[in-house]
Parts: sequence; C-alpha cells; structure tokens
Amino acid sequence: MEPGDAARPGPGRVVRALRPRLLLLPLLPLLLGRGLRAGAAASSSGAAAEDSSAMEELATEKEAEESHRQDSVSLLTFILLLTLTILTIWLFKHRRVPFLHETGLAMIYGLIVGVILRYGTPATSGRDKSLSCTQEDRAFSTLLVNVSGKFFEYTLKGEISPGKINSVEQNDMLRKVTFDPEVFFNILLPPIIFHAGYSLKKRHFFRNLGSILAYAFLGTAVSCFIIGNLMYGVVKLMKIVGQLSDKFYYTDCLFFGAIISATDPVTVLAIFNELHADVDLYALLFGESVLNDAVAIVLSSSIVAYQPAGLNTHAFDAAAFFKSVGIFLGIFSGSFTMGAVTGVVTALVTKFTKLHCFPLLETALFFLMSWSTFLLAEACGFTGVVAVLFCGITQAHYTYNNLSVESRSRTKQLFEVLHFLAENFIFSYMGLALFTFQKHVFSPIFIIGAFVAIFLGRAAHIYPLSFFLNLGRRHKIGWNFQHMMMFSGLRGAMAFALAIRDTASYARQMMFTTTLLIVFFTVWIIGGGTTPMLSWLNIRVGVEEPSEEDQNDRRWQYFRVGVDPDQDPPPNNDSFQVLQGDGPDSAGGNRTKQESAWIFRLWYSFDHNYLKPILTHSGPPLTTTLPAWCGLLARCLTSPQVYDNQEPLREEDSDFILTEGDLTLTYGDSTVTANGSSGSHTASTSLEGRRTKSSSEEVLERDLGMGDQKVSSRGTRLVFPMGDNA
Amino acid sequence: MEPGDAARPGPGRVVRALRPRLLLLPLLPLLLGRGLRAGAAASSSGAAAEDSSAMEELATEKEAEESHRQDSVSLLTFILLLTLTILTIWLFKHRRVPFLHETGLAMIYGLIVGVILRYGTPATSGRDKSLSCTQEDRAFSTLLVNVSGKFFEYTLKGEISPGKINSVEQNDMLRKVTFDPEVFFNILLPPIIFHAGYSLKKRHFFRNLGSILAYAFLGTAVSCFIIGNLMYGVVKLMKIVGQLSDKFYYTDCLFFGAIISATDPVTVLAIFNELHADVDLYALLFGESVLNDAVAIVLSSSIVAYQPAGLNTHAFDAAAFFKSVGIFLGIFSGSFTMGAVTGVVTALVTKFTKLHCFPLLETALFFLMSWSTFLLAEACGFTGVVAVLFCGITQAHYTYNNLSVESRSRTKQLFEVLHFLAENFIFSYMGLALFTFQKHVFSPIFIIGAFVAIFLGRAAHIYPLSFFLNLGRRHKIGWNFQHMMMFSGLRGAMAFALAIRDTASYARQMMFTTTLLIVFFTVWIIGGGTTPMLSWLNIRVGVEEPSEEDQNDRRWQYFRVGVDPDQDPPPNNDSFQVLQGDGPDSAGGNRTKQESAWIFRLWYSFDHNYLKPILTHSGPPLTTTLPAWCGLLARCLTSPQVYDNQEPLREEDSDFILTEGDLTLTYGDSTVTANGSSGSHTASTSLEGRRTKSSSEEVLERDLGMGDQKVSSRGTRLVFPMGDNA
Repeated sequence: MEPGDAARPGPGRVVRALRPRLLLLPLLPLLLGRGLRAGAAASSSGAAAEDSSAMEELATEKEAEESHRQDSVSLLTFILLLTLTILTIWLFKHRRVPFLHETGLAMIYGLIVGVILRYGTPATSGRDKSLSCTQEDRAFSTLLVNVSGKFFEYTLKGEISPGKINSVEQNDMLRKVTFDPEVFFNILLPPIIFHAGYSLKKRHFFRNLGSILAYAFLGTAVSCFIIGNLMYGVVKLMKIVGQLSDKFYYTDCLFFGAIISATDPVTVLAIFNELHADVDLYALLFGESVLNDAVAIVLSSSIVAYQPAGLNTHAFDAAAFFKSVGIFLGIFSGSFTMGAVTGVVTALVTKFTKLHCFPLLETALFFLMSWSTFLLAEACGFTGVVAVLFCGITQAHYTYNNLSVESRSRTKQLFEVLHFLAENFIFSYMGLALFTFQKHVFSPIFIIGAFVAIFLGRAAHIYPLSFFLNLGRRHKIGWNFQHMMMFSGLRGAMAFALAIRDTASYARQMMFTTTLLIVFFTVWIIGGGTTPMLSWLNIRVGVEEPSEEDQNDRRWQYFRVGVDPDQDPPPNNDSFQVLQGDGPDSAGGNRTKQESAWIFRLWYSFDHNYLKPILTHSGPPLTTTLPAWCGLLARCLTSPQVYDNQEPLREEDSDFILTEGDLTLTYGDSTVTANGSSGSHTASTSLEGRRTKSSSEEVLERDLGMGDQKVSSRGTRLVFPMGDNA
Repeated sequence: MEPGDAARPGPGRVVRALRPRLLLLPLLPLLLGRGLRAGAAASSSGAAAEDSSAMEELATEKEAEESHRQDSVSLLTFILLLTLTILTIWLFKHRRVPFLHETGLAMIYGLIVGVILRYGTPATSGRDKSLSCTQEDRAFSTLLVNVSGKFFEYTLKGEISPGKINSVEQNDMLRKVTFDPEVFFNILLPPIIFHAGYSLKKRHFFRNLGSILAYAFLGTAVSCFIIGNLMYGVVKLMKIVGQLSDKFYYTDCLFFGAIISATDPVTVLAIFNELHADVDLYALLFGESVLNDAVAIVLSSSIVAYQPAGLNTHAFDAAAFFKSVGIFLGIFSGSFTMGAVTGVVTALVTKFTKLHCFPLLETALFFLMSWSTFLLAEACGFTGVVAVLFCGITQAHYTYNNLSVESRSRTKQLFEVLHFLAENFIFSYMGLALFTFQKHVFSPIFIIGAFVAIFLGRAAHIYPLSFFLNLGRRHKIGWNFQHMMMFSGLRGAMAFALAIRDTASYARQMMFTTTLLIVFFTVWIIGGGTTPMLSWLNIRVGVEEPSEEDQNDRRWQYFRVGVDPDQDPPPNNDSFQVLQGDGPDSAGGNRTKQESAWIFRLWYSFDHNYLKPILTHSGPPLTTTLPAWCGLLARCLTSPQVYDNQEPLREEDSDFILTEGDLTLTYGDSTVTANGSSGSHTASTSLEGRRTKSSSEEVLERDLGMGDQKVSSRGTRLVFPMGDNA
C-alpha cells in the first residue's frame, strides 16, 4: 500500500476498526453497485513488500472504512434527492400545480445530480487499483487466495469487457452510485407491484376484466411482436448505414419489444385521480398496466429462453419457439398459483385465528406472508414479481376482510409508503443513470426508430383490440377513450428494471439507453400533456367528492357523476343484461357477451358461495351452499359470525379498499351500480321461477355494488332513486 | 465443470438465464452469509478445459441460479420461523399465558430449526469448491482475474483461518443461513433502536433522567470494568489449567465486558407492560437499557481503538488510554449531535411546510430523514446506531408535534412493525446460530466465569449507584426496586450484534459463544421468572386500564393507581419541592437535589421557551420569550398558530406518544403528576412575587403532566381532585 494512503486519518475512523469486516455495511454494498471497488482496492505498487503484517491489516481496515463511508455518502445522496423531491412536490401540490408528478420531478433532480457527479467531481482517483491474476480456463464463483500463508476469500462480481477495464474506473463516485441491477427487480419492484395489486379497485377492475385481460395479454404480445419486427428493420437499416458496431439479433429485437411493452402510466393515473376523470377509463388503464407488467416480465424471460438447437443459430426454430411458449405459460401460471396460494393461506390463517385482536402481529404476519410469496416463487424458479402481484390481489379480495380495522389501515399505509419510496427511488435513479451509467450506447437511428415503433406498436393493439372488444361490450370503449389509452402508453419503472437487468452486450446497452430516453420522454411530455389531452378528447373530469348533504340528494349526484354522457347512454333497466345474456342489442357480439357473462357469473357465484365463506367471515354459510353430505366440513369451515350477522360482515367486503383520493372515483361510479342493481332486482323479484339463477346475479350485483363510499349508506342503496327514475 | 452438475435442470430455471448477474438477488446475498459459496462455486476438475465458452456461460448461470434459489429458501426459512412465532405467540396471548415473550419463543424455534439443519441435512455437497491462487504479499479488496481473455471481477469476502478451509464448507445450508454479521448492526438494529427512542415515555424518562444517566453511563462503565477484570482472572485460571489454546489479552476481556454490559430487558419490560407494573421502575429499566446500548457500542469501539504505541504490547499505556477516552467522548457526542441535528432539521421542515396535508409525503420524509441520520453518522465516522437513538428521541420530542394525526399513527406503526420484525428476526437467528454457527468455542470455565462476572458486575453498579442516587432522590429507589433492576439484567440483541460483529480470533469466538449462552439463559430463565420475582419483591402490579366511567372518578383511581404504597408515601403538597430545592427532608442530599433541580429547570425552561416555539407549533410565542431586539427573527420563527390557539396546540405535545399497551402505564401514574401539579400550583398562586421562577416550574410541571391519557381530559387535569384533597 502507498504510504500516503495509509497516512490519511479521519476523525474517529480508527474506532471502527473491528477486524475482518471488509464489506462493512451489508446494506450499502448490497444497494450500491459494487463495481470495481476502487476506493477500497489495494494498490499493487512495490512498496507493499516491506510492510509489516499488522500495518497491512490496519491499511485494509482503513480502506474498508473508506469504502463504507463512500457507500454511506452515495446512499445519502439518494435520500437527499428523495427528500428534495418530496418537498418540491409538496410545494407544487400546495400551490395547486397538479401537472407535474413526483416521478417526473424525481427524474429531473436525479438528472441534475447526475450531471454534477459526472462533470463536477474529480475525474479519477489516480491509483493503481486492479490486480491481474491469469487463471486457468474459466471463472470461478469463489476464489481462495493464499497470501503469505493467510487465506482470503473472494466472490465473483461479474465479467468485465476487456476494453472497459481501464475506462470504467475513472470516477469513484460514479461507480458508487451505480446500483446492482438486480436491486430494482428484487427489492424495489416487489413493493410497487404488490401495492398495485393490493389497491386494485376490484369493482371496476372486475367489471372490465375481459377488456383488461385482452389489452394486457393480447395487446402486449402484439405490441412486443410489432416493435420487435420494426426494430429488426431499424437494425438492418443501421447495418446498411454502418452504424452498428456489434451483433444485434432478431431475438434481441423481440426482447426489446417485450421490455418496452410494459406500460406504466403512473403520471397519467395520478392526474386522473387528481382530476377525478372517468373511472372506467382509469380501471382499463390501471388494470392493463398492472397486468402487462407481469406479461412483459414473463415474455422477456421466454424470449431469453428461446434458444434454437444448434449453437449460435439465431434462425427460427419451431421446437424452441414452442418451448418458449410453454415456458411463458408455465412461468405465468406457476407464479399466479404461488401468489394465489399464499394469499389464500394468509386468508385462512387470519380467519381461523383471532389474530385481529393484535394488529401488530396481524400486520407483521401479513407482511411476512406477502414477502414469502416472492421468495417461494423465486425458490421454485417462477417469477417473484408476478407472484407478488397476484398475491396482492388475493390478499385484497379475501385476507383484507379478515383483518382488524387497524390492520387494514396499517397494511395499506405500510405498502403505500414502501411503494412511494421505491417508485421515486427508481425514477430518481433513472435520472441519475442517464449521466452516471458508464456503458451508454447512444444510437440516434435506433432511438428514433424505437419511438416510432412503440407508437405504432401501441396503436396496433389499442385500436384493433378496442374494435373487437366493442363488439362484445355494452359500454363501448369510445374513440376518445381509445385515443386516451393510446396516448397513455408511458413507460416506467418496469421497462427500466428489465432493461438494466442485463447490460452486458452491445445490443443490450443500446436497448438500455433507448429505454431510458423513452421513459424520460414519455413521463415528461405525456405526463405534462395529460390534462390538455383530456380536455381535447372531451373526457369528463372534475367529478368532485360529494359533501355530506350532497350524499342524500341522489338525483343531484346522478347528474353530476358518471362517464361521458355521449359515451354512456342514460341508464335503463337492461344494463345488466350483458351479464344475463339477453340484451336486445349488438346481435353480432351476443355470443361473446353471453360467454363472458357465463364465465364471470360462474366465477362470481363460485367465489361468493364457496371461496368467500371458506376464506373470510362473509358470504352465505357454507352449510347452505355446499351439498348436504359435506355437512361436517361445511360447519367446520363456516365461521360462527356468518350465521349471526351475515349482512354487517358483508359490508367489510374487500372491494371497499380505497387508497387516498380514490374515494370520489369509486363514489362517482355509483350510478352505474345503481342501474345494475335496479335491473337485477327487477329480474329477481318479477321472475319467481328464476330464483336460483337470479341469486347468483344478486351476488354479482352486490359484489359490484360493494364499492359505495359509506358502509352506512348501504341500507339506502342507489337502487331506490333509480327505481323512482324508472 | 462437471457434466453431472450442468445436466441438472430445474423446471423453469432456464428462463432466468439473463447473463451476468452472478449475485442474482442482491437482497439475499446481502442478507445471507456469503461464506464460501459452495453451491455456486466452480469445480476445478479437469473436465473443464474442453467445454465450449457458451456452455461455460450457461453453467455459470445455472450455478448462480442454484445459489439464488438456495438464498430464497434460506430466507424463506426465516420468514416461516417468524410466522410460526407470530402464530404461537398469538396462541399464548389468546390463552392468557403472558409469561413467554415472543423473543424467547423465536429463539426456541430458531434452536429447533438449527438442530434440524445441523443434523438433518446432508453433511456435505461433496464437490471440490475452492481454488487456491497463491498471491504476492497481501490481500486485495478487488481482484481482476483473467480467464482465457475474459476478465472477471472478484471482491474480498474476508480472511479464513487456514485450519478451517476444509471444515467450514461441510454443509451448504448451514452456510446459507449464516448472515453477514454486519447485517445485524446496520440493518436490524437501527429500526429497533430508533423505535426505542421514538417510544420513550419521555415524561417518566425525564423525571428519572438523572438516575437513568447514572445507571447508563457510570453503571455500564463500572460493569464493563468489573466484568473485564473478573474475566481476566478467569482467563488466567484457564491458562493455568491449560484450557486456553490461543491468545486472550486483557483488552479482549475488557471488550467482552463492554459488549456484555448492554442490557436488553425486552421480556421483563413486556411483562411489566402486560402486568402494568410500576411505571418509575419501568422508566428506570427502559431508559437504562436504551442508553446503555449506546454506551456499550461506543465503549467497545473505544476499547478496540486502544492500541498502545509499541507493536503487540498489551500493557497499559496512558496515552493510548486517554486517546480511547477521547474517542469515546468524541464518538458519543458526535453521534448525539448528528441525531439531534437531523431531528431538529426534520422538525423545522415539518413546521415550516404544510406537509401535514399530505400524510404520505410527511411519513416518507420522516422515514428518509431518520434513515439519513444513520448514514450521515456513518459517513462522518460516528456510530449510526447511537445517532439513530438520539434522532428518535428528538423526533418524538419535537417533530412529532408537527405531524398530522395520520402521520403520527403512520410513523409509530411503521417503526413498530419494523422493530417487531427486526427484533424477532435477531432472536430467532440467535437460536439458529447456536447450532449452525461454525466457529463456536465452548469453554465451560469461561462460560461459568462469565455468568458469575455479569452477576457481580451488575450488582456492583446497581446497589452502590442506587445508594448514591437515593441520597439525591425524593422518591427513593427502594430495595425491592434495586433487586428487580439487578434481576432484570438480561442480555439481548445488542450484545449479540456486538459479539457476532467480529468472530475472527479465538478469543472473539469464545466470547461470541458465551454471549449467545448468556442471552439464552437470561431471556428464558429471567424472562420466565419475572412474574414470581415481582410478587416476591412485593412490587405492585395490576394497575388496570380504567374504563370510561372510571375516569371520572378521580378518587377511586387515586387509590388503585400508583407505586407500591410502602415505597411511595401518600402524596402531599411538597412533592415537587425536590425540584424547587426547598424540601424539608434529606438535608444531606439537599445540595445535590438543588443542583439537579437547577440544571433540569434550566433545560426545561430553555426547551419550553425557545426550542419548542422554534421547532414546533406549541409553546409561548417567541416574541414574548426572546429579547426585544430579536423581534423580527422571533416573528419569523413563531408560527401563527401559537398566537391563535396556544393551549390546544400544546395538547399535541409529543409526550403524548403512546405505543399500544402503554396507555395504562401512563395513566396509572397520574397521581404523582396530580400531586406535583398541585404542589406547583400552590407555589405559583400563593407566592405572587415568584412569578418568574414559578412560570418555569409550571412549564416543567405541565411538561411532566403531558402524558395524560386523553387529550380531552387535559381541561380537567388531575390538579382539581387533588385540590379537593388538600
């Protein structure tokens, strides 16, 4: 070691010299990229030989401390960035400037700090940091190094492209603020995704489930395929122009299509919330973005797994293709199952124990079970993030009902904070990465091509899918909604996390840079343009939260509330006939409607008659729904509360989950429910013979109507004013 | 690589094959000990040479995946352990078995799983895992390894004692569940310590501050010194008997004294809470344990820093000794300052912004600022954990007042959950470590000696200090309280975290094993014996939470509530004279009393007149307390609310912080307050000329009386029934 280095004491530094902790702060090295740890790296200069063993030890300790301190400083940088973001966003909210979302702001601050770090800090630490040790034939994960009789253990950090060895180590600080890419995927994304699942407004979500699934699955696949092909054209063009300096295969293009197909309209949805825009549009956009994240992850994994039989052939291979499809289905269903199973287990545990007397225990259990989903899925080779999403949905649908009132707010708030921190962290990191990331490959042609491709890719699924969906939907998705969905194709945290996960090859680096720019552009431009777009497209906004006295005036509310009038015809009694399968109109799509109606009715009735009674304290007693020979089992599974007070318990339904600011949205939708209820009630009361069938419809209607703002207003449901109307 | 290894496919495993993430899950490698990563380690068998590059890459990926999966499984093990603990503890609470604390239970479960892992899993993976590469002269933090043209980066994990190289790698699973020791110190302890600071019942804490400081500082130093010396005797004895196989210096003994002096009466306090035992005793024990954690950390660092001038001399060196003392003071005051400053900054930010309209932003800011304390202190070379403690106290004292009602409960609940999870995690890890930790050194003589030493060490500071403190205390610390404090000297998370931090040398390993056993014994035996001990020592318990109507009947409450009657004489009007310095009794200690009264009165008056008005919305307007020439500044700093509604805002005082189950304790103490209030009121109303002085006493009294259970009951303070009494 160099004498000058060892002689650099810091106040109080010496006291931390507990011996063999080389990676002092496990949180920090974990979080902070452990690129070549130049600060702590040893110099291989000749002076080392004569140092005594004790001095060496001390020097290593000092280096480790220095590294630890740098880690702390870098993490502190991010915390200050987030603090600044919070304060500024408060200022914007306080001054009623709702058009800049915190994520956009976080990116801007990140960008500024990135520029400062890049150009403001000393360029190089000027020390000889690395040591080459020519090895046998391959890399080992662990290396035992014998240094004059002492054994030291080394862990493999990753491969470094030979050309970069000298260039990457120019700036300590830049490397310090570069995180391990897997942090995003395994630490920051799960709370974001879980929160999305846990706060899905299930009422609107389920009402639009068919369309959401179509957009999320078919749409993402179409988008991925179209973007992939367009980009392959762009790559061909680049080859011709001579702008491509390394390999770029067709599978790479498809991979790019997959990662960039994950939409994340976080800013648009925030503005929708702020402006109280149409709830169905909100549900469509939110549901699509949540599910297509999952689809994009699994799709990109499947594309990576596509490996034709022969080595290095990137031609089409049917067997490999079907294997990829199989993997897609396997991973997706496996992750789904994991998530659902953990959710169900949590529901059962919270139902059959009286844990709700101890909200702290309950919350801790809920948190642990939700986390275990992630680990379980990862341990089984599935995708933890996807499992966490479906776990969140299951927890919200069942477990939430069993929690105590305090635990409900605790769990919601806990995941809300985690989600907020993680999301803003990712976005500020994105801003930072634009300048501090060391392997950018800026290719103007590729970038322009990508912008065109994502535009076309989104257009190519929104409009055709909407057309087909409209054949089967009673509430058509109008042109203005389609345009808005088209417009809201922002890219965000998921695309970034997928892109940064692998930046080893030239193609992946180019993708990463392009993804970053796309995220920037879409979040800033589209985020800022949402409000003008809403008014330009004539989408109704400004459904305000009704005050107490307003709530009594149902009729007033009816006129203020709801979707765009030219979109949504005044409600009539047959608006539930979509699900009953006997609507008089849209004869062409009747079959589709009937089928979806049948499927969803089946699910609802199953859910209501069996799943909810088994997993929660609500629903009809199992003794009435299960066949007689299951009597004993039914009695065991049915909680006594169900017999006592079926109605009050029903009101604790999980559809009542509202995050802040959602109140109005849910409430604003009540006319449609009222409409549906009224239609269904007519059916069940007028047709005495259809009792069995209408009971399941009643269930459905009740489930759909569960989102009313006040539990206490349940007694005077919106059915009644509508009855006056009709 | 071996062909058999590569040919081991798992379902869906191939899809995770994104390339260069060798340490896949940054959370897991971070959390899980990265001992020699045998699962992922490469075999150096001869078959490798002929493998193609692509196959090699794939194999490395598979190994990394396998390692990732193992990480997930190990973490899952801990989560299931915690889940099991939660469910069992619920069962105990449900069945009213309050005498087993969750931490004890977590240890038992950890122990069971440890035994299973140790004896139930296959002993060795049978693969050749390590590669020796004889190096130059010293260890480097980073190693660049050139493998047939490709560069791989390795990071130093730590030194391995040569004898252990083959023995430590026997069992993959054992190593997987062995965490990086720094995890405890840098991830798990901060939330525990912050929560302790944030939930300090400041009213009782401040009333007993002098005694608490004495126990924490003097007591810990005395205990450390006595234990260190006794253990040095034990070590000498072991040398004579021939039981000592390696070096064990006097400084090692002192270090052991420091780490084992950190008491953690978590189970005793939980039982106190459950049984509603005496509040002053609770305050003494809790305050002592919180502060002596901080003292023990800094003390152990100072002892490590004690390095006499000559190399390898372990004799006494005055210069080094004073340097250690200086370091102790420097670290402690530095950490204290860091914590206080961050707390003050947070208070200022929350005061001067209207962030309380957005509880989510407020909570996130609070969390980030509190975390930044830790990083700031670490970055400056101080001790993060200590800084976090004082930050917690400051946040509770000032910032808490500025938070919105929702943020108050959010922050409390957030840190409560984090604390709960972290604490139980540590304790279940302790149980596990007894069997899975690979470097245990069981030395019966040392262990027995240590038990005797900690007993004597605690006795040697509790009784003498209590004697001296009683000279100055009006409310004497009675013999039964002293015995109870003596008895409650449990060791817990802090001792463990300090001990596991460094287990490189033989002496440290012996210390670690002994610490583990001491923690086990004290938590189980003492935890289980608390209730018998309480009744045996005749300490009043069972002060139950008064129901609504009970609260109106002050007199009833007076008789039910309060400390042991033979301990605490019936209240009279002079019970506040301790602070007024004119008490008629204990003439010998009058000087002491007056001094402490003066110091604390000064602090209270400064805090109330300047700090609270500056940092919160409460207190008198600064325009009245600051001299006239500061008028402008005073107007800027005083929030308008202070003028408008000084009284209502005062009620938001942070002394009102109550965690669950604390309600009764705080309330149960109200007689003493009532007593104090009445005395003080008499003073301020009867002596017109002493207005200036009595105003600061009123402040003090009000601050002390701040812990009343209901904000609404503030108007009818306990002063009035007492007035009737007198």
